Amino acid sequence: MVKILIIHGPNLDLLGKREQGIYGKITLQQINNTLKDIGKARKVKLKIMQSNHEGEIVSIIGRAKNEFNAILINPAAYTHTSVAIRDAILASGLPVVEVHLSNIYAREEFRQKSLISPVVRGGVYGFGINSYTLGLNAAILLARDNAQKRR
Amino acid sequence: MVKILIIHGPNLDLLGKREQGIYGKITLQQINNTLKDIGKARKVKLKIMQSNHEGEIVSIIGRAKNEFNAILINPAAYTHTSVAIRDAILASGLPVVEVHLSNIYAREEFRQKSLISPVVRGGVYGFGINSYTLGLNAAILLARDNAQKRR
Amino acid sequence: MVKILIIHGPNLDLLGKREQGIYGKITLQQINNTLKDIGKARKVKLKIMQSNHEGEIVSIIGRAKNEFNAILINPAAYTHTSVAIRDAILASGLPVVEVHLSNIYAREEFRQKSLISPVVRGGVYGFGINSYTLGLNAAILLARDNAQKRR
Amino acid sequence: MVKILIIHGPNLDLLGKREQGIYGKITLQQINNTLKDIGKARKVKLKIMQSNHEGEIVSIIGRAKNEFNAILINPAAYTHTSVAIRDAILASGLPVVEVHLSNIYAREEFRQKSLISPVVRGGVYGFGINSYTLGLNAAILLARDNAQKRR
Amino acid sequence: MVKILIIHGPNLDLLGKREQGIYGKITLQQINNTLKDIGKARKVKLKIMQSNHEGEIVSIIGRAKNEFNAILINPAAYTHTSVAIRDAILASGLPVVEVHLSNIYAREEFRQKSLISPVVRGGVYGFGINSYTLGLNAAILLARDNAQKRR
Amino acid sequence: MVKILIIHGPNLDLLGKREQGIYGKITLQQINNTLKDIGKARKVKLKIMQSNHEGEIVSIIGRAKNEFNAILINPAAYTHTSVAIRDAILASGLPVVEVHLSNIYAREEFRQKSLISPVVRGGVYGFGINSYTLGLNAAILLARDNAQKRR
Amino acid sequence: MVKILIIHGPNLDLLGKREQGIYGKITLQQINNTLKDIGKARKVKLKIMQSNHEGEIVSIIGRAKNEFNAILINPAAYTHTSVAIRDAILASGLPVVEVHLSNIYAREEFRQKSLISPVVRGGVYGFGINSYTLGLNAAILLARDNAQKRR
Amino acid sequence: MVKILIIHGPNLDLLGKREQGIYGKITLQQINNTLKDIGKARKVKLKIMQSNHEGEIVSIIGRAKNEFNAILINPAAYTHTSVAIRDAILASGLPVVEVHLSNIYAREEFRQKSLISPVVRGGVYGFGINSYTLGLNAAILLARDNAQKRR
Amino acid sequence: MVKILIIHGPNLDLLGKREQGIYGKITLQQINNTLKDIGKARKVKLKIMQSNHEGEIVSIIGRAKNEFNAILINPAAYTHTSVAIRDAILASGLPVVEVHLSNIYAREEFRQKSLISPVVRGGVYGFGINSYTLGLNAAILLARDNAQKRR
Amino acid sequence: MVKILIIHGPNLDLLGKREQGIYGKITLQQINNTLKDIGKARKVKLKIMQSNHEGEIVSIIGRAKNEFNAILINPAAYTHTSVAIRDAILASGLPVVEVHLSNIYAREEFRQKSLISPVVRGGVYGFGINSYTLGLNAAILLARDNAQKRR
Amino acid sequence: MVKILIIHGPNLDLLGKREQGIYGKITLQQINNTLKDIGKARKVKLKIMQSNHEGEIVSIIGRAKNEFNAILINPAAYTHTSVAIRDAILASGLPVVEVHLSNIYAREEFRQKSLISPVVRGGVYGFGINSYTLGLNAAILLARDNAQKRR
Amino acid sequence: MVKILIIHGPNLDLLGKREQGIYGKITLQQINNTLKDIGKARKVKLKIMQSNHEGEIVSIIGRAKNEFNAILINPAAYTHTSVAIRDAILASGLPVVEVHLSNIYAREEFRQKSLISPVVRGGVYGFGINSYTLGLNAAILLARDNAQKRR
Repeated sequence: MVKILIIHGPNLDLLGKREQGIYGKITLQQINNTLKDIGKARKVKLKIMQSNHEGEIVSIIGRAKNEFNAILINPAAYTHTSVAIRDAILASGLPVVEVHLSNIYAREEFRQKSLISPVVRGGVYGFGINSYTLGLNAAILLARDNAQKRR
Repeated sequence: MVKILIIHGPNLDLLGKREQGIYGKITLQQINNTLKDIGKARKVKLKIMQSNHEGEIVSIIGRAKNEFNAILINPAAYTHTSVAIRDAILASGLPVVEVHLSNIYAREEFRQKSLISPVVRGGVYGFGINSYTLGLNAAILLARDNAQKRR
Repeated sequence: MVKILIIHGPNLDLLGKREQGIYGKITLQQINNTLKDIGKARKVKLKIMQSNHEGEIVSIIGRAKNEFNAILINPAAYTHTSVAIRDAILASGLPVVEVHLSNIYAREEFRQKSLISPVVRGGVYGFGINSYTLGLNAAILLARDNAQKRR
Repeated sequence: MVKILIIHGPNLDLLGKREQGIYGKITLQQINNTLKDIGKARKVKLKIMQSNHEGEIVSIIGRAKNEFNAILINPAAYTHTSVAIRDAILASGLPVVEVHLSNIYAREEFRQKSLISPVVRGGVYGFGINSYTLGLNAAILLARDNAQKRR
Repeated sequence: MVKILIIHGPNLDLLGKREQGIYGKITLQQINNTLKDIGKARKVKLKIMQSNHEGEIVSIIGRAKNEFNAILINPAAYTHTSVAIRDAILASGLPVVEVHLSNIYAREEFRQKSLISPVVRGGVYGFGINSYTLGLNAAILLARDNAQKRR
Repeated sequence: MVKILIIHGPNLDLLGKREQGIYGKITLQQINNTLKDIGKARKVKLKIMQSNHEGEIVSIIGRAKNEFNAILINPAAYTHTSVAIRDAILASGLPVVEVHLSNIYAREEFRQKSLISPVVRGGVYGFGINSYTLGLNAAILLARDNAQKRR
Repeated sequence: MVKILIIHGPNLDLLGKREQGIYGKITLQQINNTLKDIGKARKVKLKIMQSNHEGEIVSIIGRAKNEFNAILINPAAYTHTSVAIRDAILASGLPVVEVHLSNIYAREEFRQKSLISPVVRGGVYGFGINSYTLGLNAAILLARDNAQKRR
Repeated sequence: MVKILIIHGPNLDLLGKREQGIYGKITLQQINNTLKDIGKARKVKLKIMQSNHEGEIVSIIGRAKNEFNAILINPAAYTHTSVAIRDAILASGLPVVEVHLSNIYAREEFRQKSLISPVVRGGVYGFGINSYTLGLNAAILLARDNAQKRR
Repeated sequence: MVKILIIHGPNLDLLGKREQGIYGKITLQQINNTLKDIGKARKVKLKIMQSNHEGEIVSIIGRAKNEFNAILINPAAYTHTSVAIRDAILASGLPVVEVHLSNIYAREEFRQKSLISPVVRGGVYGFGINSYTLGLNAAILLARDNAQKRR
Repeated sequence: MVKILIIHGPNLDLLGKREQGIYGKITLQQINNTLKDIGKARKVKLKIMQSNHEGEIVSIIGRAKNEFNAILINPAAYTHTSVAIRDAILASGLPVVEVHLSNIYAREEFRQKSLISPVVRGGVYGFGINSYTLGLNAAILLARDNAQKRR
Repeated sequence: MVKILIIHGPNLDLLGKREQGIYGKITLQQINNTLKDIGKARKVKLKIMQSNHEGEIVSIIGRAKNEFNAILINPAAYTHTSVAIRDAILASGLPVVEVHLSNIYAREEFRQKSLISPVVRGGVYGFGINSYTLGLNAAILLARDNAQKRR
Repeated sequence: MVKILIIHGPNLDLLGKREQGIYGKITLQQINNTLKDIGKARKVKLKIMQSNHEGEIVSIIGRAKNEFNAILINPAAYTHTSVAIRDAILASGLPVVEVHLSNIYAREEFRQKSLISPVVRGGVYGFGINSYTLGLNAAILLARDNAQKRR
């Protein structure tokens, strides 16, 4: 049974309370429940975590290599500033999917450049919670491919 | 029954023959068959077209407003140069999903800027044919939402 | 009797339906009728065409040299991307007037740079349909001047 | 009877003597006479002034709000450097038309950027004295619209 | 009784020891004592903290929404690099005042751009400890306004 | 008794009439009255002037050296364009405080760069009339320090 | 017998009429006759076409792969704007020679950047019609090399 | 007898009091006396003025055409910001010499770009009062040349 | 006996596993053993630590001032983004040596700019483990110099 | 009999030994022999030289004016840095042809900008030794034209 | 008797033959004769040299320190590229005057930036041979000042 | 016995006389003696040269390939401008070590970009003469590795 690590970046714990015009009313809890339902239906093990600490996210990705087959990450604000997370993804050697709730390309200039995108396999943006569900589907395909190669 | 317009941009008719290192061996015909299967399964009408002409793509989007509920587009090379397609999307008022086979953010500098992204609802990139299938799933949700609002 | 070629660029066939906040409710048909009325009153022959195709606009300007005395053009989205139309204008040797319905200098950054402006005689922007009527008046003066020189 | 304020920016008092290759032989006096004729014919009150002082232009626009229905301005060299005139135009709340004798977009790089254009309704450039007459026609339409709203 | 959260960013625990030419001899303890005296005199509750961790500051701002009426922050080095703190401030919905001991606009180029300034209400810079006392006065006014609106 | 020169830059005479969404309803008269009250209470002599002329502001600062102990200035639009005012401040050798009613860092790109900030002691922005009162408090401290040094 | 495709880009049908100061008096017909003479003498089959349409050029290159051994192209204005032609050249896998009548590096800034050059084998510029004859000689060598490899 | 107009720009009335590290102890009066001595010795009429007002300098240059044979100008801070003075110089048609007391190319970045230099005949910088005396010598040669041509 | 603090930045715990093409097969443990051997031979006390947390590194450097005589640091990914570590180094007043395993100037653009280099004494890059041993030799010289000055 | 000067720039003496992946196995001797054969066949006198010294190349071009009718130059590394060679070419007044063995537009960013191209008649790049033979053919035509004009 | 070193940079040996539109018909010999006459009249020893070699100029400046009291240099093309000459000037500790025959600020963009200007005392440009004579006068003053200090 | 070529770039012959604040009092002779002592102790042959000529350094590196096993270079001012030396290093195929006496990253902007660094194996900067001794140690290791491979 393949395992996927899901990482929510900084401030995402505030979803539903924070700027509803951009991020909608859905809470992180509701997103996680939806992802867990998909995990059960598709027979995939998920580990979900949220952190505001760049270093913590770096460490978790650093340890993910042997335990997981793929990573789904919404790097939030660190999308635009973190070379450390970028390096951690490269070091992990795992297939990674980047997701964003909003269309970051329709927002402020500095949000339109992702330091993470060049090192992931692919990404989904702009569909709210559906960015996560579509992204998880992509991650499952990549994780199964990864599991097969390891054997 | 909702209707979705699917547009393949320039050079995509060459898929499977063209630079396989980047785009893989799959042909446009195979992608279209997969999309049609999803269309039948999800009970959605699809109209699929490919064009190398910027003006032709502009005209088709211009006429799409009343006939379709959403657009799925891979603008290919016009992603980076066409203000006219951008304007046509804005004018159509339809929800649009942008897809790319490759991870454009991991390629040449000039391919990392999309003129189209700021005017679409969201996008999927980097998963090969799965960019299309995930993108179609997103488009179906947006199309149903669009159909409901029109009633 | 002098002759003026009037060219409407991409997406202008959608006027009145498209983003009314920016372009107003007037249709291309209404603009053309107003221009024809001025043509009759001022005893000038007009030929009016609209195209979404960059290449078609290039070809029409290329053939205009001997038949017309001036050109009035709203290059729309091609304002910002077409070196080919710019070259065609230079090649035609005709006096050209550039018009825009909206104030392009009050819009997005990329709309504030016109590739066409440096090769026209002058321009009018921001007055809606009146950009066309004022621009046609300028074009008539330039066309009469052109006709006189040819004799 | 609507009232329009016409402002000539720095160095325009030298018209006819100054660089005739760019600005032609016409004098400011001749331009003003032509504008006054239009004013009489169209039954519009005009007030015309010229100043080389940025601060003076700012003050005049600052006092214009209640006395005038529209402004016609050729900001000349201040087009490219004056945030203060830009702010005064914004503060006046009046419809403003920007005119230029020459095609500023066909000249030096630093003349191709107008700080004023983003805050006016529209503009006319490149037609010599006709930039003024066409611009005045546009200003009359906007002034009548403004007078109607005030009632 | 309104409550204000005061945040000192990275390295500010070293005040008094660190580059005295720029920051003076005053210690963080002395600044905090002065702020507490003002708090008592103005009958405002203050909570003061210092952290070198970007993630920790993000978390504290994330939890501040219901407990506090305003935030006073000296983001120090994170002023120039942290999109995460910027997002946290936006998410909090609280009025925020940004203060700096030194005149950051008279220092190195990279210190002259603040990622935080665009999302705060206002700021004070360059007056040493008085930047804090003036900033606290501004924060008290904003906090009382905030408290009134909540009722 | 220390003396402080207060300078209001261009267009500030229009306060209360001008763009209320940004600058509020308060008039320059009301601001001046508030400042005078503080002056009396704190036993400081104030001289207040407003000018739309860059050259006039330069001249006044040029003569301020011996008569005043500090300057409080809101350079308004000249913040972004005047090297001459910057030079005058440097030449005066007086401590200067820069204030802005609005948060200039949350506005247009060209308003986020101040030519004045690098030569002042410090500044206050974004608190409306309170920017002035807080700024005056800072100026009083600097003026007293200045007076002491002169003795 | 090897086959070479020769493509003339937009506005080249106007040669001889258009800006003679830059492009000379020679017509496209004369250039083609010269190229055909070389073709006969060197025993190479040539197919020559001209188009103002970006999409049409893309389509022709797309179909060239199996029929031709090399391409000689003067992309004219599309040199500077067409990512689609660039992609088509890459996709064709054929050796391509880029030619220009004028020295594009001695002209306007925007003409000095070719999007096409990085994907061709080599190029010739600045020698008028001789750019074509020298370029055809280079193309013949490359075509023969290509034919040999295919066998 | 030829006549030369000498213009001192903003803040130069403060010479000798202002930043002595950069500008030295010499006063404007002393510079003017030296220039007058040269004028007498070389039998040239001089008219000397100083102004802090950009508009005033523009007006004086505008009227200089017929009365003077050359201009010597130290534009000071307006060197870097005034398109209006640049235009006035162009309009005057007079030979102009630009002088600076200090070496502006050894100072802040923004002082290293002169808007005036491209429209003058030549310049002298960095020699303190000798910049003026050498510049006056150059101006005398140009003025005599100008006087000769007028006859 | 002098003391040197050795800091390994983010992701260096993965050495030997991570991108071997760039960083080689050596592990952090092996590097540390080599450094300890040198420490014993040269009679210098070493304290070695590794951290993925920017804040932690800042804090450690903040406390280093009195305990250590020099710092040897490989800031890894934080080299390019951390103003906080830069400030901490400045605040410490200690001589610092920066080392890199790879030649950062031969890698991606964004790795070629170090925010740390301007505040260290010197650095060594590109020699794999030898960057550390050479760097430690430099640090020992600086530390002895530092110890002597303190006495 | 016309005379052509052929200049090989720095490092070209290493051809055949240096980076064969880019420049091939051919030596400078072999290139020169081929050029001499063409010279004999076409009855043109050639003088061939190679130099690593920028100043030497400048001097040779400086003396070429009267002795030669055209120059063929491969400026190699000096293509991108030498304003002195550019000035020498301008000063010579001779027609110059620039050649490159490799396609410089497909290489590193800094090799894509030629300081030489704007001052030559035309150029050939990317065809290995054939760049030289095609370039020599162009140079012969220009040299004959030059010789004719001199008579 | 003070001594001044005069250096003419690359290509200046070609004066009178080279681009006469910009540099006039005067030869280097004529300039040198004029300078020698001034030298005799003012009782100053001159040593004059010209070189195309950057290294040679560097060496000469390197040896100038003890033998000369000032340097007059026209760095020509090396004005814009030579850090080595800049360093040599700094190292010499001598007062240096930079001269240019033409107004470099009215020419191509890349000629408007001098690497030399920031390290000289001052300069003269745009007056043809008079740039040299005025510059020599400035150099004499600086040389006498230098000689006095050495005693 | 391995052989190492040591190259000192322009102006380094002035060491000890030149700007002692930056480079210290040590002379080139002293540095060379120290290097020779190391050479003897480590049984390595050294050849040491200094040149101010860019072209000479290019030639020496060009001839070094067969005679030496490694190069140690301090390119001094050519660090920032010489593409020719960069190419020569690439062409030599030898391992190269770059050293600098000062910390170039703590100096002027233009000294912080090395054109040489991307083509060397590694480098040492900022430790005065110790940059050379540490760099030589690195070069010895690389030279021995090189000698072994050649056998």
